[in-house]
Amino acid sequence: MSSDIRPQIESANAQFVSAFKRGDATAMANIYTAGAQLLPANSDFVRGTAAIRTFWQSVIDRGLKGASVETVELEVHGETAIEVGRYRLLAAGDAVADQGKYIVVWKHDNGKWKLHRDIWTTSQSPPAA
Amino acid sequence: MSSDIRPQIESANAQFVSAFKRGDATAMANIYTAGAQLLPANSDFVRGTAAIRTFWQSVIDRGLKGASVETVELEVHGETAIEVGRYRLLAAGDAVADQGKYIVVWKHDNGKWKLHRDIWTTSQSPPAA
Repeated sequence: MSSDIRPQIESANAQFVSAFKRGDATAMANIYTAGAQLLPANSDFVRGTAAIRTFWQSVIDRGLKGASVETVELEVHGETAIEVGRYRLLAAGDAVADQGKYIVVWKHDNGKWKLHRDIWTTSQSPPAA
Repeated sequence: MSSDIRPQIESANAQFVSAFKRGDATAMANIYTAGAQLLPANSDFVRGTAAIRTFWQSVIDRGLKGASVETVELEVHGETAIEVGRYRLLAAGDAVADQGKYIVVWKHDNGKWKLHRDIWTTSQSPPAA
């Protein structure tokens, strides 16, 4: 099973990116498990579908237009996968608003790979004080 | 095996916290695997023992005096474990300099559990602009 998981993860990531580009926070949230958690900077844990939808809606409302993600490393352990990757967040005109790296813990959930734990950090310098 | 892993992870975390309190970045780095990576904010990936030692030395040099960590969730998959937790970074007098959450991917390496991938995000508000 392991050998064909990477395309499945990449396909789920492509769905996420596509939903982001459409500004569809509901579709973004539905790519997560029901018990999923985001661990964003400057926030406590964001738990569950409704809170995750609200989180991504707030990102869209701040003017972010999309993202790109690149899988750097993928480890599969049965129904669980650990992905290490790089991301870019895009503003209008595909300007790079942020770039960084992430770890996602994926779960195989009713035949689909879904994001279960999602944490990322910017690689950009902090804003000047 | 799974049932007795949590105390082993907590013991490794206690060693990390103890080394931090002593200001011993070398001991901190040695609790990571040789191929370990940190994914800190405002930095690219930090890869390997020497770079990890330098990273923690820079944290110590900024006046941080220690840390506390709390395991919230631990999933074990053979020689790999995924920990979700909360941390505090302590300044002089045990003042809380930062607090947040993390994911660590652990590897069972020559009989010891070692940190392999380490990413954390502050839960504090960003500094006022």
